[in-house]
Amino acid sequence: MKNKMYIIKIGGALIDDERLLDQFLDQFSQIKEKKILVHGGGKLATELAARLGMEQKMINGRRITDKDTLDIVTMVYAGGINKNVVEKLQQKKCNAIGFSGADGNLIKAKKREHPEIDFGFVGDIDKKSVNKKLLSKLIKLNLVPVFSAITHDKKGNLFNTNADTIASVMAQALSSKYEVELLYCFDKVGVLENVDDPESLIKSISEEDFTVLKQKGKLHKGILPKLENALGAIKNNVNKVFLIKETELKNHIESHHAGTEICL
Amino acid sequence: MKNKMYIIKIGGALIDDERLLDQFLDQFSQIKEKKILVHGGGKLATELAARLGMEQKMINGRRITDKDTLDIVTMVYAGGINKNVVEKLQQKKCNAIGFSGADGNLIKAKKREHPEIDFGFVGDIDKKSVNKKLLSKLIKLNLVPVFSAITHDKKGNLFNTNADTIASVMAQALSSKYEVELLYCFDKVGVLENVDDPESLIKSISEEDFTVLKQKGKLHKGILPKLENALGAIKNNVNKVFLIKETELKNHIESHHAGTEICL
Repeated sequence: MKNKMYIIKIGGALIDDERLLDQFLDQFSQIKEKKILVHGGGKLATELAARLGMEQKMINGRRITDKDTLDIVTMVYAGGINKNVVEKLQQKKCNAIGFSGADGNLIKAKKREHPEIDFGFVGDIDKKSVNKKLLSKLIKLNLVPVFSAITHDKKGNLFNTNADTIASVMAQALSSKYEVELLYCFDKVGVLENVDDPESLIKSISEEDFTVLKQKGKLHKGILPKLENALGAIKNNVNKVFLIKETELKNHIESHHAGTEICL
Repeated sequence: MKNKMYIIKIGGALIDDERLLDQFLDQFSQIKEKKILVHGGGKLATELAARLGMEQKMINGRRITDKDTLDIVTMVYAGGINKNVVEKLQQKKCNAIGFSGADGNLIKAKKREHPEIDFGFVGDIDKKSVNKKLLSKLIKLNLVPVFSAITHDKKGNLFNTNADTIASVMAQALSSKYEVELLYCFDKVGVLENVDDPESLIKSISEEDFTVLKQKGKLHKGILPKLENALGAIKNNVNKVFLIKETELKNHIESHHAGTEICL
C-alpha cells in the first residue's frame, strides 16, 4: 500500500498576514503524514518593485515577467518568503527545507510560448517536469519540502511559475509513489455559488459541474485557474483534491469534511 | 579511507563579476570529488538597501544587522544570488542544490553576544552548529550543496553569518567523515608580504608565522579574519587549507601548487 502524502498550497494573502500564517503553520506542522508545502507570492514582490520605481509591464491585460521582475520575485519568493516560512516551521519542530525548482533540478520548466505575447520569464510545467526520484529520496530523509514558485530550464534561466500549477503537477508526479491528497488553501470556505455568501458552499465539483458553473458565469476570475489545476490533478491519479479555508486545515485533516471536494 | 571533499568559499567581488563568476563556476563544476560551495554577498545587498533609502547602521565602526537589513540580505543572498549560482551550475551539469542554514536545520547559530554592542541579527557558529548527519546524506545523493551565509537559531530567527566562518566550521564538522580540503578563493594570488606586489606571495603560513606577520602589521584588515578562520580549520582536523586566486581553481586542483597554504 502507498503511504499517504499531503501536498498543500497556500497563497499570497496568507503569506501577508503574519498572525494567520503562524496559525496555519502550526496546523501544518502537526500533520503526521508526509507533506509538502507550496507557497505563492503575496504583496511583498509588488511592494518592493513599487519602492524601486519599477513599473509593472502588462500586455493585453496580462502581466509580463521581464528580467527585473524575475530578479525581484526570485529574491522575494525563493529568499525572503521561503526562508522565513522554513524558519517558522523549524521553530515548530517541523524539519522544513526550502527549494526552488532549480535546486537539485527539482522542477524543470519550459519558457511559455505564445503566438503573440512574449510573457518573458514565465515557465510552464507538466507532471514530467518534477524530479520525483530526488524528491522522494528527500522525503524519505524525513524532510518537509517547502517550494517557492520559481522554476528553471537547466539552460541558465530561472522562471516565475504559477504556484497552483506547481502544486498540481507535483501531486500528479508523486501519485505513482504516494497516495496524494492535494489541498488548495485560501481565504474562502471553498467554492461558493455566490462569492459573497459563505453559506453557498458547493461541496463537490466534477468536471461536468465545472463546465456548467463556468457557462453560468458562476466562477469568478480568481477561482477558475485554481479549479483547472485541481481538475488536472484529479484526472491524473491524484487520490483526493480539496479547496479549503486556510484556518480549516487541522479540522479538514482530522475529519475530511471541510471545503469543496474536486471529483472525477 | 575517507573520501576527498572540497569546501570552497567565494566572495562578493566574484559574485559581482558575471564573466569571472561564470569562468569560476565552469572550473568548480569540473571537480570530480565531492564538493560544497559557500558564497558571500557582494554589492547587491548594499545597492538594494541604498535604492530603498535604507541607511547602514554602524556602531563603533561595526556594521549592525537590524531587521530591515536582515530582510534584504535574506532576499539577496538566499534568494537572488543563491538561486542564480545554483542555476548556472545546473546549466553546467553540476547537480547544485541551494541552502541557507535554516533549511533542514543545516546550520544552527547563536545570536552574537557582546557586552556593549547589540549587533542585531548576526549569528555565531562553531563546528557543532553544522548538521553533518543530514549534510552527509545529501552529499551521498550526489547533490552539490551551495550555501548562502544565512543561518538560524530554530527559535524563529534568521541570522547574517560570516561566509568565511561558515566554510571553516563546515570543513571542521565534515572532517570526521571526509578528507576535507578547504579553499578560500579571492582576488589575490594568496597572502602577500606586500599587498601591492603579487610577486610577494607567502607560500605557507603556520600559526606562528601568522602571529609574527600580525605583529609586524603585514596583514591588512580584510585578510585577518580569513586567516583566523583558515587557522581554525587546520587546527581542527581539516586536512588541507589554501587561500588561492579565483581563476586558479582548476590549476590548483590539478597540481596543488597555487596560493598560500595554511599549516599547523
